[in-house]
Order: sequence, then structure tokens, then C-alpha cells
Amino acid sequence: MIYSSHSLTRFSAQAFHCLAVVGLFSFASTSSAQTLFGFDSDGSAQQRQMEAEFDALIDRDEMDRWLKDFSSEPHHVGSPKSKENAEAIAQLLRSWNYDVEIAEYEILFPEPLTRELELVAPNRFTASLTEDPVEGDASTSNTDGLLPPYNAFSIGGEVEAELVFVNYGTPADYELLERYGVSVAGKIAISKYGGSWRGIKPKLAAEMGAVGTLIYSDPADDGYGRGDVYPDGPFKNDSGVQRGSVMDMPTYPGDVLTPGVGATGDVTRLSRFDAPTITQIPVLPISYRDALPLLEAMGGAVVPEAWRGGLPITYHMGPGPARVRLKLEFDWKMVTAYNVIARMEGTELPEQWIIRGNHHDGWNHGAADPLSGIVAMLAEAKAVSHLAQSGYPPARTIIYAAWDAEEPGLIGSTEWAEHHAEELQEHAVAYLNTDGNGRGFVNVGGSHVLERFFNEIMEDVKDPQTGVTVQERRRANLRINGSSEKIRNEAKNRSNLRISPLGSGSDYTPFLQHLGIASANMSFGGHSSGGSYHTMYDTYEHYTKWIDPGLVYGQTLAQFAGRATLRLANAPRLPFDFQGFTDNVAGYIEEIEALADGMREKTATDNQNIRDGVFGIILDPTKSFGPPIPKPPVPHFNFAPLKNALARLTDSADAYQRLAMSGAPASAHQNYLLYTSERELIREEGLAGRPWYKHHIYAPGFYTGYGVKTIPGVREAIEQRQYDQVAGQIEIAADVLTNLTLRLDELAER
Amino acid sequence: MIYSSHSLTRFSAQAFHCLAVVGLFSFASTSSAQTLFGFDSDGSAQQRQMEAEFDALIDRDEMDRWLKDFSSEPHHVGSPKSKENAEAIAQLLRSWNYDVEIAEYEILFPEPLTRELELVAPNRFTASLTEDPVEGDASTSNTDGLLPPYNAFSIGGEVEAELVFVNYGTPADYELLERYGVSVAGKIAISKYGGSWRGIKPKLAAEMGAVGTLIYSDPADDGYGRGDVYPDGPFKNDSGVQRGSVMDMPTYPGDVLTPGVGATGDVTRLSRFDAPTITQIPVLPISYRDALPLLEAMGGAVVPEAWRGGLPITYHMGPGPARVRLKLEFDWKMVTAYNVIARMEGTELPEQWIIRGNHHDGWNHGAADPLSGIVAMLAEAKAVSHLAQSGYPPARTIIYAAWDAEEPGLIGSTEWAEHHAEELQEHAVAYLNTDGNGRGFVNVGGSHVLERFFNEIMEDVKDPQTGVTVQERRRANLRINGSSEKIRNEAKNRSNLRISPLGSGSDYTPFLQHLGIASANMSFGGHSSGGSYHTMYDTYEHYTKWIDPGLVYGQTLAQFAGRATLRLANAPRLPFDFQGFTDNVAGYIEEIEALADGMREKTATDNQNIRDGVFGIILDPTKSFGPPIPKPPVPHFNFAPLKNALARLTDSADAYQRLAMSGAPASAHQNYLLYTSERELIREEGLAGRPWYKHHIYAPGFYTGYGVKTIPGVREAIEQRQYDQVAGQIEIAADVLTNLTLRLDELAER
Repeated sequence: MIYSSHSLTRFSAQAFHCLAVVGLFSFASTSSAQTLFGFDSDGSAQQRQMEAEFDALIDRDEMDRWLKDFSSEPHHVGSPKSKENAEAIAQLLRSWNYDVEIAEYEILFPEPLTRELELVAPNRFTASLTEDPVEGDASTSNTDGLLPPYNAFSIGGEVEAELVFVNYGTPADYELLERYGVSVAGKIAISKYGGSWRGIKPKLAAEMGAVGTLIYSDPADDGYGRGDVYPDGPFKNDSGVQRGSVMDMPTYPGDVLTPGVGATGDVTRLSRFDAPTITQIPVLPISYRDALPLLEAMGGAVVPEAWRGGLPITYHMGPGPARVRLKLEFDWKMVTAYNVIARMEGTELPEQWIIRGNHHDGWNHGAADPLSGIVAMLAEAKAVSHLAQSGYPPARTIIYAAWDAEEPGLIGSTEWAEHHAEELQEHAVAYLNTDGNGRGFVNVGGSHVLERFFNEIMEDVKDPQTGVTVQERRRANLRINGSSEKIRNEAKNRSNLRISPLGSGSDYTPFLQHLGIASANMSFGGHSSGGSYHTMYDTYEHYTKWIDPGLVYGQTLAQFAGRATLRLANAPRLPFDFQGFTDNVAGYIEEIEALADGMREKTATDNQNIRDGVFGIILDPTKSFGPPIPKPPVPHFNFAPLKNALARLTDSADAYQRLAMSGAPASAHQNYLLYTSERELIREEGLAGRPWYKHHIYAPGFYTGYGVKTIPGVREAIEQRQYDQVAGQIEIAADVLTNLTLRLDELAER
Repeated sequence: MIYSSHSLTRFSAQAFHCLAVVGLFSFASTSSAQTLFGFDSDGSAQQRQMEAEFDALIDRDEMDRWLKDFSSEPHHVGSPKSKENAEAIAQLLRSWNYDVEIAEYEILFPEPLTRELELVAPNRFTASLTEDPVEGDASTSNTDGLLPPYNAFSIGGEVEAELVFVNYGTPADYELLERYGVSVAGKIAISKYGGSWRGIKPKLAAEMGAVGTLIYSDPADDGYGRGDVYPDGPFKNDSGVQRGSVMDMPTYPGDVLTPGVGATGDVTRLSRFDAPTITQIPVLPISYRDALPLLEAMGGAVVPEAWRGGLPITYHMGPGPARVRLKLEFDWKMVTAYNVIARMEGTELPEQWIIRGNHHDGWNHGAADPLSGIVAMLAEAKAVSHLAQSGYPPARTIIYAAWDAEEPGLIGSTEWAEHHAEELQEHAVAYLNTDGNGRGFVNVGGSHVLERFFNEIMEDVKDPQTGVTVQERRRANLRINGSSEKIRNEAKNRSNLRISPLGSGSDYTPFLQHLGIASANMSFGGHSSGGSYHTMYDTYEHYTKWIDPGLVYGQTLAQFAGRATLRLANAPRLPFDFQGFTDNVAGYIEEIEALADGMREKTATDNQNIRDGVFGIILDPTKSFGPPIPKPPVPHFNFAPLKNALARLTDSADAYQRLAMSGAPASAHQNYLLYTSERELIREEGLAGRPWYKHHIYAPGFYTGYGVKTIPGVREAIEQRQYDQVAGQIEIAADVLTNLTLRLDELAER
């Protein structure tokens, strides 16, 4: 089926018309016949010619061989296979004429020595804590060196206590528990995976006084409730367990002992007992098979409807009578992380670096996560090298990085970024990340100065399943499935599709949020969901049967990411678009105002209903569910400084855009001013309470984990009801926008 | 906990102020200090004095004894116990000096002779089709004469075919099935209970070509997913089956052989083979225990997320490979339905009748449904009789009716209403219904001319759990849990709470929708949900443990419904309020316009997306899910005739209200004109395609069953996309409003 692009083409023409007449409206999509932003017409043609050659160099069979080889054994950081893969990757890159080093860091990486979980009352049950091999997937029987299910950076210890069911263990869940008069203090919280990043669950449970946390995958969210389970289908079977780090990544990622500095052999380290990102209480992930007897033995109130899962039981909140004993011991050993760093010097602007990374360590065989991304990156690197040798050397320096130790907490990339902070802030144009890949729609998250840039790429890459461009396919999906009318309408009418702001969850975090380097993350997905994530079932067999058979989308990812690398490496004027940035920031400010208004209205209504006794009289007196507690009213905030700063920035962005579109050439210094403009969005002080995070537009949520918070200082002060902080945070956010404004004025020579 | 009513009292005062000044705004709540609408000040005081005496006469212990006696054995129509209960009720009413007759009707009532359900492929399983006795509930072992689980008015037959899972079996579900390329033609549809009235499921399945239907209660909707199951809790255990009628009640209720006429011994009857309300295909209800092996054996596409239930499996759509054999045979016998009709002649206006009914037949022991309502009605009837003998005889005639054969299709009430249609249309002031009762919030549905009347009662009856008025408690619940902001705001700010429009589901239907008699249905609920409905677990034990221990709300229902009976019987001017009616009708017109606008916009967007190929390119080509089929665009409709008619009616309602509030006495003829005003809302022709339903403001939905459709001619023409019918239906609806306008002008002597 071919998508009719008539209406879009017409729209683009209109948009250009507007640009000509009004001089402002430049959200114009460029079709492949059009000039690429940052290139002149000839340069665009030459770039596209090179890209066509590039596409032809991507070899799916070779990618498949790499995938099979690298995933033949478990390869977590510290394992022999991880080192072996790093060396193999280095060898490949060397063979393609890259200047390769393996950057080593000495990091803390605990593996479990003891994992015991027992129901001790009202009946007894011992959790198996193991995953079953399945027929038809030989990898699941090849488990030498496989890490058992555990949460890295859980503290060790032995606790015995009654269970309390906390749903997803989010702040809202604890607020509701309080209305039921149920506390986790002195108890073990049992939480479903989902609703927030896993590390938030033990963090909040500990804040609420719990002595331990269990996390299980409920089959409604991640199991038979989603679809057929492995090996009959891709979804999580009853023995599957999601491993994963629970370090307090929203405080800082990377080695827990060396915040802010590279974990080279000689740096001063924290004592592990002082490391703030290790959990306060023991935490263990379990399968739904192991969770069932525990949940079945619970009493207390029936949980609210929204909390119920897919097990064939009535879910109760506790506390107890189910009582469990949890014992965890870890080896707390130091291991070496091996980052492969491969450099190809730029011929014209060697001091300007494009960094392109993907981690290589997995929790297990790691076929999807991360090798499906690594093999696309390697195919890209090989093709880039081939092009360089056949007359298309990159103008700027390209650095390919295969990170180790991403899984335990973005450690390899963070240590390298911290280690080389100064030179990176000087030289890094952008960081381009990939990780696991799937089948379906293109997903791009990143700095909004790159929104236009990525839309040009989306328009030039074809979706392998339908033959339309990946932009058209994504646009179509948003037109139908966009979660709001605004999104559905924009998908139809806005020439550039929005890219998502980045929270955390992969290796872009140190570059973007610590160093202020414009970053992006690219992947495909939506038609390949499954339950193999961080289980022993993330195998070559699973991946090639259920996720991306034939690595068709692996090839597309290589084409997509390769264009990003090559265009950034070659664009005479770096394609940073500040109008896209200001438009998105305007939306975030609107969101935050709406958030405050909604909270103000809700709080006022709730408080009035509490005052009027309305909550009290509707409750069932036979049940232990009480009215909510009144909250301080939400004041009105002065957003004017932020909006005034944005207005000035918008004006300057328009002025710069006129310059950029005029065809004026960009000097090396202008390019420098362009790519270091993202540094204006960070402040040395960082965010309140977490100085490692320095970016004031994008951060992972302190209580959501991976989930992004845009303009985080302001947004989180409001969300966390720290009203006296809001005005100061608005000033800070306004300041960073003003700094960017000055930078743009310098660029536009205003 | 005592609800502070300050804000409400203040509001009432303001409302009265508005009335005085503006002369229009009369949605004024009357507190118990205020004059009752329809009474003068002295009359109100006397009425309230009588009601205080009435309240003291309600004896919960006696209600409990009746409940226990009447529910001691299964008592469906045609059973010995049903006749015995009818006679016992008649005897009680006679002993209280009512003029009692047992009105007998000869009706078709099929009981099953054969019920066989077998999975024949890909493996074998024979469904038990039985419910298990449980410990602690002796009634569940006392099953002599218990009807087994079945759907009355299913046709018999034997079919063998593959299963197709159809979710709730609604029109929207079949639309989605079509996108999956799955048809039920020649298959057996397996449907969850819920989403529509059960009789709609085989009706639609047959329209789509299915050869049989199974209906099961999914545990997510009605089982362990809701809460602890019987006997540990009130919810449906794995053997429980919801019985129930599947006759095509939206076409006509009552005896299937005698539409429109009373099923007395001598009337002409249809042949059963010509009866249009018997299903076209066999249908059988089953438990989730019996459903599990069938669903587990199904293949085909995984069902959409919204269709998934609470069984520990992945739900598939089929068709097959699960193949079942279903065999049903029925006895198709004639039985006698015994309606108990007890009359107390009015002393002043004996030709004006207040009819108060509750059915007495159950599907089984029937403690909740219907006996919890019957015992409240009997307590009321006894107290009314006592009051009559102690100096408070009713001014108008009161008729208590205990209906038989409600369960198979409102048969007892319908036959009596059809039999006495002419005199009822002449004499009946109102029909007041109750049925099963529970614990929690008051629910009133009914003709909106009674909205103000019922609000006055809600303000005078205290909630037994909290001590606030039942209006305050309902208002509080709507303030917190109202499903829209409009509802939550109105609960706070509108002096009268809205009553719900009536669809179907109990014995008010023939009175309201066939005869045009103002009707209402009253109950309490919200804190007593459970899964006993139409199962063998609807026992005295279950009811008094889980639903209304001590019959506390039974007493409140008697107080509530008794006031309704007594106030209607005694009001010098019948308390019909047409301003409440016009306000609600205005809301329905707005709803229908919004419905058309929403459908128009959705259809246009979908059609454009289909034309643009957008649906096509987002689909996963490895899955069999196609784009939707374009629908004819939704035209704009001319609602002006309806709105003009409403504007005139509103004007006349205001004029009548001024007269009524002036204290002018009402003659017998004026009262006659008042209560027969509801007849202006019916037309002899009835609704399109279902002439039995004559009311043009309220009807059960043709494709929803119990669910109400207001202004049904217009609404269903739009919903069913019969656009060429809409203008005509708007004219008809405008005509009935105009007829009511003329009636009000006659009343107001304009």
C-alpha cells in the first residue's frame, strides 16, 4: 500500500510560501528534491549521492553473523564474553582503518552470592528465582556465566516481614495506600514492574520505611495478558524475570563510587557504604510464577480497580498475613569496563567531533538489548570507512563508541564522558545514540535543535515494510494513534514531526545532561513488543523470530543513523535549528502552566470537598478507606520571566534562521558557536539536590526515573509542591534561555 | 461523620431569592422545614407528621422473616413456591385490609430439557454447566426445583462449529472483528457478559450469521477480578452462572405469544415459531470455569487490549481451532403467572390511582432479586394500611402489585398493563417500581416531571449509615465520583439532583414506555456490589451477610418509596414539575447534537485517513488487521424544529409553574390533566420498527437493551446512520413536545 503524499507536498509548498512572505514560518519540510539544511544545493546533491552508496554498503547477512556471534554467550560487564566482544568490535573497527583504543575503567559491579525468597506465613513456599530453558531456543540452555535474576546495586541483607502490595510503587500509589491506612513501614513492599523506572520502587519504598522490596512482572502488563508467551510467542512466560539496575540514577548514573570523575585506576573513590546511589533496602525481581503464591496469601483490603493485575486471584493490599523472608548477598567486586573508542579524523574540521555510540554489554545473551543496535552501528561504521576510502572522507571527526557496563547504570559511557569532560565540551558537536532496535515506526528523541535535521533524514529513509518514508509512516501512526487531539492534528498539519525530549535509559545521558552536548537516540519499534527485555530469553533465536526477522529494520536503522552521522560530519553549516527548539520549549511552558492550573483546581476542589465532609459521607463505613488529607493550596506563579526570555529567544532564533537560510557560509568558529550553544542550557550548579544533572531543559524525573521532565527545575518544584522554589527555578530557566539568546545574537551578528 | 450542609442551605436560599426576583429560576430545593410541592403549608406539615408515624411502623425484623420465608426455596414463575409466595403475599395484604386479587395470565415459559456443551476439538472437554454448593450457605444445597443455568427464550437446537470470541458482542465489537477479517458466520460466538444487555448478544450474533452463542462471566468483570468470591466474599466464584432472559425485549417485552394484549386464557396467540422475540440461534450462559478450557483452546489473532479479560491465558479471537457442540432443548410449556394486585380505595379521588409494584418471582432463591425489594414494599403496604386505619386514609387510590414472571421478560407486569391498558391510561397517576435493593446511595430513575418530587423525598430521608439525608450522600458521591466535570459541578451547584432516564430492566417498562404513565424506579446501592445476580448464590445467607445485613437499607427503601406513594396519594395538586422535564430534555438535545457532531468529525477524519492510505501504512504487514471501511459522511441535521418546540414548552412550563406556586387549588380535572400529560409523550404508532414502544422521550436501546436512549427516534436514527430518517424523527419529537405544550397551556389557562 502506498501512502498518498499529495496533501503533505501541498502543505510543504504552502509553508515555503509563508516563509517567503512572512519570513518567519520556516517549519518547512524538505523533500528529497530539496536542499538539506546546512548544505548548499550542490552539497546536498553530493551528500545524497554518497548516502545512496552508503545504503548499498549495508549488509544484513554480515549484521546477522555479528549478532549471532556476539550473542552466543552471556556478556555482562566483567564477563569473559564482554571483554571478548569488546576486542572483536575493536578488531573490526581497526580493520576498517579506524584509530581504535579500548578505554578501561575500574568500576564497582556487584553480582549476587545469595538470593533466597521464602513465604514463611501463612503457608510456606520457596521461590525458584530461576528461568526455565525453552524448546527451540538453544541459547536458553547455554547458560554458563548467565547472571541470575537480580537487581544490581540493591544493598545486601536479610529481612523478614509481612508483605504490602504497592501497585507500581509510585508517589501516587503511596498516597492512596495512606487513605487505606496501610503503611509499608517495617514491611516488605511488593510492587509490579511498570509505572516508573524500577530503581524508583526501592527508593520510594525505603523513603516510606519499608525494609525490603520485591518487584515482579504482572502478566497483565508483561506476560500472557499481552500476547502468547515464549516460545509460543514473544511475551514473557511465567518464569521470566526482568533483571536490571536499581541504582539511584536520577541522582547520578555511572560508577557509584566515582560521581563526576572518570573511574580510572587512580582516582579517589567513595567507600561503598557512602555511595548514595546504592539502595537503602534489599530488592529482588521475581517472575509472576514466584509472585503468585505470595500474592495469593495476602489479606487486607481488596486493591483498587486500577491496581489489579492479570493473575487469577483477588489482589489484596495486606499488610500480611503473607510474610516473607528475603536474603540477598553480593560480592561487591571491582571489574573492568571496556569501552571501544574508534576515531576517524575529519579532513576539514578535525577538532569538531561527531560521537556515535551504542553499548555492547548485555544482562544475558543480549541479542535485542543491545546487540541489535551494535550490529547496525558496526554496519554503519564499516560503510563510512568504505566511503572515506572511496573519496568521501568526513569533514569532521567521527568517533564510534561501543560502551561497556551500560546495563548496571550507564557506567561505561558516563565514566568516559566524565573522564574526558573538558575536551568533549570543547569538541563534541553531538552525541548520537542507538540501543536495542525493533520493527515498526521510527522513534527519535533528542535535543530540539536537531528536530528539523532528523525530519530531513526521516524524509529520505524508506520504511522497509511499506516503501513509504519513515516520516510518512510515523506521521500516519500519530494521525491515527496519537494520544491527544493536538498530537493527531499536528501529525497532519505540522511539517516537522516533533522528536521526543530525552529523559534517561541509555548512554546519551552523560553527554546531554551532564555535559550539555546536543544528543539524540534513534530506534524503530511498535510492531515488535515482547517480554524478553532483560530476561534470559533475549536471545538470537527470540530476536530473529519475533522482533526483527532478517534484520530488516536493523538495516533501516543503519541507513537512518548513518545519515545522521554523515550529515553532521559534512554539513558546511551545522544544521542546528533554534526555531524548532523554541517552539518545543513554548509547548513545555504551556504544559507546566496547565500542570499548575490543574493542580491548583484539583487541590482546591479536594480541599473544599474535605472541608465539606463530602469524602467522609460517601465512604463505606464497613471498609477502612479514609478521606484524603488536605494539601496546601497551589499559588499562582509568575511565569512572565520565562515567557519573556522565550520571546527574546524566539526573536533571536528567527534572526539566526534568516542568516542560516540566506546561504551565507559558516566559519569554523561559527560552527563552534553553533554546537556549543547547547552548553548554554546547562549550569555548573546542576539541578536542585542533584548537581550531576546540569541541563535545565531535559532531565530524567527524580520520581519517575527514565521518564523525562522538561524544564525540570520548574516542573519538579511544582509537582513536588515545593512552591517556594518555583520563582527561583523560573529565573534559572529564564537565565539559560537568555544565555542561548546571547549566543544566537552573536551568531547572527546582531 | 456528619456532612456539613452549610453550603447547600446557602445555595437554596440564593435559589429562592432568584425565584422571587427573576420569577423563573425555580429549581429550589425544599428543606424539611419547607412546603412540599403540591401541598400547602398545613398540608405539608400534616403529611410530614404522618410520614414520621409511617417511619416508626417499618419493622426490620418482620422484613427479615418475610425475606427468609419467601427465599427458602427457588421461586421462578411456574414453580410451586412462586404460587405459594403469591398467595402468602396476597394473604398478608388481605390481612391489612387491602382489596386483593390474584391476576392470572397464561404465558409461554420454556425450561431446559437438555443442556450440553462440549469442546470437540482440538481437545475434548465437557462443560459441567452446574454451580457448586458452598459451605456456610445451606440454601445452595437446597436446590430442589432450582432452574439450571440457561437463557430463557433461547431457541433450541444442536449446533457444532468453531468458536469466535466477540468480546461483549456489541455492534462496535463486530466492526472491529471485521477489520481482523474474522466473521462469525457459521460459527459459535463466545461473548463476555457485560457491555450490553445479554439479549443483544445472540440477537446481533444471529444478525451476523452465527449459529450459536455462549455467554460467560469473565472474572475481570464479575469474579475474582472484582473482589473475594463466594463464600469468602460476595463475588462470583468459578462455578457461578448468570441466568437470564434473552427474549428481544427492545422489540417488545412480556409474553412472547401475545404482544400488545393481556395473556388471558382466551386471547389469540402467535405460534411460538412466529414469535419474533425468541432468539434465532441457541444461546447458553456458562461459568468462567467452563469457559476457560474453551478460550484456552482458541487460536487466531490475539484480541485487542480492551477485549482481554481476567483468565490466566492469552485471549484469541479464533475462529477455532476450538470447536464446540452445543445442544439445547426446551419444554416450551405454558405456565400461569400470578400477579398479586391489592387495592386501597382513595377517599377523595378514588379514580386517580397510584400504582406501586415489585416483582416476586426469582430465578432461584432470589433473596436480593427481587425479594429484598418485595419485603420493603410489604412493610410499606402494611404501614400505609395502619395509617389509613388510624386516621390517614389516602386521598387517591393506592394499588400494590407483586408481579410474577418479571425475570423471563417483564411478563407479569406487561400482561397486566396490556390487559388493563385503557383504564390504566385513564386512571393511573404514576407507577412506582422497586426491585432488588442494596447498601449505599439512593438511585432514582424516572420521568423527569417527578425530578423535583423525588428530590423533596431525598431531602427528607436519612441515610442510615451516616445520618445525612440520602440526597446529601448522593450529592457527595457525585461531587467526588461523578463521571464528568459537568456532573461533578452540577452535584455541587444544582439544587435538584438529576434523576436518571429509564431504559428497561424492570417492571416500569410497560407503564412508562407502552402506556405513557409517569414512572419511577427506586433503589439503594453502590456499597454492596457482588456476583450473586441470577446465580444460585442469590440466597438469604448471601444477602444478609454481604449485601444488606440487618436490612438497614431495606428499611430506608421502605421509608423512601413509602413517601413517594403517600405524597402522590395525598397531594392536593399533583407534584408534576415541567421545568425539571424541560431542563433535562434540553440536555438530551445537546447530547444528540454533540453525538452527531462527534460522529461527523470522526467519520470525516477516518474517511480522510482511509483515503490518504494512512491506516494502511501503519498496519503490521505480518498481522491480519486491515483498515476500516469508509462510512457515508454524516450530514448536518436541522434540530431547529425540536429546539423551537422545546422553547415553547419551556415557556409554557414556566407559566404553569407560576400557577402551581401561586397556591391556587387544583381541581380533580386539573389533576387529571396533570397526570395524563405524560400520555402526550407517546404516539400510537410507537417507535420505528418497534411499535410496542410508544414513548418518544425514553426507550431502551435497540442495540443496548437495558441502556436508555433518550429522544430515541432521533438518537437511534443518528447512531444507526439512518440519516434520511433523522428529519422525520425530529419532527415527531417536536410534535410530542408541542402536544405537551398545549396541555400545559390548558392547565395554565393561557
